[in-house]
Amino acid sequence: MTNAAVLSPRGAARLASGHPWVYRSDTLNLPDTPGIHAVQDVRGRPLGWALVNARSEISVRLLSADPAVRADEAFLRARLDAALDYRARLNPDADAYRLVHGEGDGLPGLVVDRYGPYAVVQNGTAALEPHLGALVQHLAERLGLQGVLARHEGKVRALEGLETGIDELYGRVPDRLEVQEAGARGPVRYLVEPRTGQKTGAFLDQRVNRALLGAYARGAALDVFSYHGSFGLHLAPGAAHVELIDASGAALARAEENMRLNGHTNVTYTEANAFDRLRDLESAGQRFDTISLDPPAFAKRAKDLPNAYRAYKELNLRCLKLLPVGGVMATTSCSFHVSDSDFHGMLADAAADARVRMRVLHRGTQAPDHPERLGVPETRYLKFTLLERVE
Amino acid sequence: MTNAAVLSPRGAARLASGHPWVYRSDTLNLPDTPGIHAVQDVRGRPLGWALVNARSEISVRLLSADPAVRADEAFLRARLDAALDYRARLNPDADAYRLVHGEGDGLPGLVVDRYGPYAVVQNGTAALEPHLGALVQHLAERLGLQGVLARHEGKVRALEGLETGIDELYGRVPDRLEVQEAGARGPVRYLVEPRTGQKTGAFLDQRVNRALLGAYARGAALDVFSYHGSFGLHLAPGAAHVELIDASGAALARAEENMRLNGHTNVTYTEANAFDRLRDLESAGQRFDTISLDPPAFAKRAKDLPNAYRAYKELNLRCLKLLPVGGVMATTSCSFHVSDSDFHGMLADAAADARVRMRVLHRGTQAPDHPERLGVPETRYLKFTLLERVE
Repeated sequence: MTNAAVLSPRGAARLASGHPWVYRSDTLNLPDTPGIHAVQDVRGRPLGWALVNARSEISVRLLSADPAVRADEAFLRARLDAALDYRARLNPDADAYRLVHGEGDGLPGLVVDRYGPYAVVQNGTAALEPHLGALVQHLAERLGLQGVLARHEGKVRALEGLETGIDELYGRVPDRLEVQEAGARGPVRYLVEPRTGQKTGAFLDQRVNRALLGAYARGAALDVFSYHGSFGLHLAPGAAHVELIDASGAALARAEENMRLNGHTNVTYTEANAFDRLRDLESAGQRFDTISLDPPAFAKRAKDLPNAYRAYKELNLRCLKLLPVGGVMATTSCSFHVSDSDFHGMLADAAADARVRMRVLHRGTQAPDHPERLGVPETRYLKFTLLERVE
Repeated sequence: MTNAAVLSPRGAARLASGHPWVYRSDTLNLPDTPGIHAVQDVRGRPLGWALVNARSEISVRLLSADPAVRADEAFLRARLDAALDYRARLNPDADAYRLVHGEGDGLPGLVVDRYGPYAVVQNGTAALEPHLGALVQHLAERLGLQGVLARHEGKVRALEGLETGIDELYGRVPDRLEVQEAGARGPVRYLVEPRTGQKTGAFLDQRVNRALLGAYARGAALDVFSYHGSFGLHLAPGAAHVELIDASGAALARAEENMRLNGHTNVTYTEANAFDRLRDLESAGQRFDTISLDPPAFAKRAKDLPNAYRAYKELNLRCLKLLPVGGVMATTSCSFHVSDSDFHGMLADAAADARVRMRVLHRGTQAPDHPERLGVPETRYLKFTLLERVE
């Protein structure tokens, strides 16, 4: 069977250990055409079915370890249905949330985010691409969507040999739409630009965490790396005043619109490098009772870790210095390569340098509509910790 | 100043790193009398104040890194007040919960659990012992308690040179009392025997986790290492039937009383070794829709880890094999020496061996009335994970 992906003993051992990915270097033969293919070990024993692409560094992404399963488009559709069933059970108190979280839902490389009656799709594998149209059709019909947009940008698709572009795959999707999510003091509304916003238009992974911090909002509040006000919108209802810091004037302009949409007038917008602005606030002797620090991923690759550690530590140290006793800070890393233990080690170092004693109020991760799959650490990338200064 | 604890450079570096404990081997001079003492480096520079005991392996437990602070009984009382303030803010939906969590509340070695109008105290340091009476008096008066019991047992106190025994420190405490905690389907009542029960009478650290699992209870349910029904009492309201497994007939007898107290008649009690019983259930082809696995700490010391790994993996593997697709399992390790990453690695290995695909619904730790202190990993010991079998 030349049409099967044949794994080296190391590749087969990788699957046996429970991780669904096999690198090209651990394969002995790969089919020419990307798609769903059978997987075998070197002795021809069937190991299941996978999304296979010889051009991709991760050449094999296991769909099922059961050789008896019929892995076809109906199989993928059943996985999609299971993902949608899970969200129906979660019943998120929001109309913007994740519908499909790649490996977390057994659909490698596929991300689907919902924004009310619209969805935004990102597909990162050539093997799934021939089935994308049918999956989108099924999704749109099942949820009664008005439009589905593909946000097909970035290096991943190019590496898979796929075209990039932003296209409507179903119906029509507006350039801008309004959604809402639950906050500690009632619903929070915000605008999303699905064609141009970050990721699929917004950072949905922090949805639950934003509401958690909102419950602690009081006094002077600070939102560092605010983007379009993701955390700030949850700080404004409880705080006397909120300062948003972001390097992007366009993001702050949308934040201002979002604040208006929610009727908040207690906000200032600072277009600045966060490191510089935090240093200035410290020099000016400012203090903030509630702080959100939600920086971009500093460690996109494992080799970025030492620099990422320094950047995270400096930011956290500066924020801790702005926090009075009793103040609460939410701090995040969205870098998969920064482990829970790295992250909390870094925080402990920053607290020791700042000579403050901190209580951990909560450790969390991405919202449950971004489910972790046991044994696939890549599906759990977000670290979110709520700290209270006690001394 | 011979009355100060003088640290070696390594001991001083340990404090500078943020961890409050210094081992005897990292000290140069220790006062003869256990108590609150000043701490200095080798050049006589003040490093703050600590609970110090030359007889204890952990000879120095820093209270404050601020040499200007006056560390005395009033200082300890202020720490106690801060711990009680935090619980007042948490306002737990239960009348049994932890009031003082040792280092988590800046009171090294001190544990206080509340059971309605009573409290149970465990003090593990000779340095704090002279102040215990005053602290208990303050606690009892502030909360209007009817009695406070000392559960002073075990090796820790002997190693500190302290007497052991079970004594009323304030008022009167009954041999048995009834408490309640929030469950997914209403309050759950249970009996506590503060003189003879596990720990201070009950496992309060799993309080929130029990309610979380309770929300998933359905069909046939299994509570492995049930003790007096801690999880089972939360499974019974939603499940068709619950089997409790415990090696202690006395624990099961109290579980039976607790079930009666809550009006549950859908429970069977199996006095057995959990490993054996799980094997028998598997052989009999039994399946359980909801499972709680809450074993004792298999790794009390770091050197127990390899054996602990094997024991945890066998138990989890056996439980996973009893779980149908759609089933939910809560699995726990209360061993501090088993890291989050060890624990989830073990679970992933068990799932790979069982050939099941698992969604992580939730990762948690002990209830927030057992607060973690940033930089003191020992204050966060509990791993609690909710898994759903998806395939």
